Amino acid sequence: MSTQAQHPTVLIPGPIEFDDAVLQSMSTYGESHVGPAFVKIFGETLTMLRQLFQTKAAASQPFVLAGSGTLGWDFVASNLIERGENALVLHTGYFGDSLSACLQTYGANATQIKAPIGDRPSLEEISKALQEKEYKVLTVTHVDTSTGVLSDIKAITEVVRKVSPNTLVVVDGVCSVGCEEIAFDEWDLDVVLTAGQKAIGCPPGLSILMLSGRAMDRAKNRTTPPASYYASIQNWLPIMQNYEAGKPSYFATPATQLQLATKEENQANAMTAIRLPESLTPPDVLPKLFQKGLVFAGGLHKEIASKYIRFGHMGVSVTDPKRDDIDKAIAALKEVFAEVKK
Amino acid sequence: MSTQAQHPTVLIPGPIEFDDAVLQSMSTYGESHVGPAFVKIFGETLTMLRQLFQTKAAASQPFVLAGSGTLGWDFVASNLIERGENALVLHTGYFGDSLSACLQTYGANATQIKAPIGDRPSLEEISKALQEKEYKVLTVTHVDTSTGVLSDIKAITEVVRKVSPNTLVVVDGVCSVGCEEIAFDEWDLDVVLTAGQKAIGCPPGLSILMLSGRAMDRAKNRTTPPASYYASIQNWLPIMQNYEAGKPSYFATPATQLQLATKEENQANAMTAIRLPESLTPPDVLPKLFQKGLVFAGGLHKEIASKYIRFGHMGVSVTDPKRDDIDKAIAALKEVFAEVKK
Repeated sequence: MSTQAQHPTVLIPGPIEFDDAVLQSMSTYGESHVGPAFVKIFGETLTMLRQLFQTKAAASQPFVLAGSGTLGWDFVASNLIERGENALVLHTGYFGDSLSACLQTYGANATQIKAPIGDRPSLEEISKALQEKEYKVLTVTHVDTSTGVLSDIKAITEVVRKVSPNTLVVVDGVCSVGCEEIAFDEWDLDVVLTAGQKAIGCPPGLSILMLSGRAMDRAKNRTTPPASYYASIQNWLPIMQNYEAGKPSYFATPATQLQLATKEENQANAMTAIRLPESLTPPDVLPKLFQKGLVFAGGLHKEIASKYIRFGHMGVSVTDPKRDDIDKAIAALKEVFAEVKK
Repeated sequence: MSTQAQHPTVLIPGPIEFDDAVLQSMSTYGESHVGPAFVKIFGETLTMLRQLFQTKAAASQPFVLAGSGTLGWDFVASNLIERGENALVLHTGYFGDSLSACLQTYGANATQIKAPIGDRPSLEEISKALQEKEYKVLTVTHVDTSTGVLSDIKAITEVVRKVSPNTLVVVDGVCSVGCEEIAFDEWDLDVVLTAGQKAIGCPPGLSILMLSGRAMDRAKNRTTPPASYYASIQNWLPIMQNYEAGKPSYFATPATQLQLATKEENQANAMTAIRLPESLTPPDVLPKLFQKGLVFAGGLHKEIASKYIRFGHMGVSVTDPKRDDIDKAIAALKEVFAEVKK
């Protein structure tokens, strides 16, 4: 029995509400991280990720590391680009700035194409930028939870393949994997990174990535060693290959209980940034929504943080027909807006 | 209700057996990582770590990150030493080699003092090395789980303070915090790093550190930026300070469910490396022990891996009087050794 009864419904863009089965799996007894039971779970999870990301290419390589989604950025920045090389960052909100900072930490030159808030860089701008210099990677935030902007990954990748075919396309799918369409092979993507606590429906603490053969080759053919130890592909690749082949292996201890939860994954739909009426700020409405038992998130993008709230609608909150989280949320939003207008 | 009934008893040097309360806490309903309930838990956990590490100095700074214990090495190597500076690594087994590799990834020159297997570097050797050149950090593995060797942290630190007072003393306490004495202030330590899944008694997935004021100053006064993004003190310090002060804050999503488990922590005693009789190797005894419902670990240190097994005795397996894990383990070891000798 989980202790789920009677709690405010969490409707933020992750962490989200948990399925009972997910919580139950987390309370499984202690297991060795190199014992046959866990090796099987870990191996199967890696194989299932191929399905989740829609890739059948044998060269595609899944990774699951103990860490936040942010660790996936270090993984990209320390393995797939070298000091002094160029990265093109498509900026659709908060996460463009922080991803640039991460790339620069490991020595890359990050150039951002910044769209006006609530918008996204145009395909023409992207094409023009790619013609100007050689970019080793292009990064794009699939769903920027600070603005609710959805990027068109398929169209962007088509532009990259036409103008600069060797540029790696890196998709930050933290808030999109499991709730937005991502066709890894068909769209010819190189990296999609995500985390367990969004539409996958697990607690936070797992960094999850899929890399293409092209990305794996880039990592393999570096002229300098990986710039991170904990996030090094060189250190993790044999571990992932061994576990998927059913063999135990050790580099750093995996987050065993969280990985049990991943086996129970759900898939659902994303998040919405809700613009408030001119006279209102998040503190006017969030406490009232909380009184009705609902946890929404405040604004995250600093230039507009006081003007909107964020509503995550993922996982069991939308997929479990026995729950009425979304109906309650919409009703509560209506009531609260009616109340504050008085 | 946890699903603990009927499972092989895990007696490896981490992950270990879980207390029901720990598992129960992991199955708590979804919560926002910036909501008041979680902020309180996270803040209290940081304050409790001061007690666990025995530090009352206001300048001491605890950190809890989503990641394996190994991430703590990146934290040290990317924040407390700069490219081209020297680190002295006391080698008592497997973890000395890998910690050196981590330091070198971020540009430090790592010099190891290697003891014969099963032994530790002498205080004289350490003193002599510290006189030869300027070492910015000295690292020591408190309990090396590949050999079972226990280092004398107090005595080593006294040597450092006498010969090279500004050298930071970094203790890898992954398998010692919670089961071996560590007096952070009294011994004048600079960094003790650990993980949740050893004597603290939680599932794996949390990297836990305590830094001294001296270590924090070193990080603050770097001439180059931190060499990691995800493990950057600069990125995490405001988060830890805010949570401990009861204020939500965001850099990367914390592992909420694992942190709930940390609040339930246990403390106990370490691990033993058991040398096998000449004619036996781990595959001769581990399957037989498993048939009796007990999971021991194989050898880890590559030069002696075939000659010993590892027995973790931590957490509820030793502290819960209702459990007889250790009695069962000792009886099973006796039976199996008697059996294989026939």
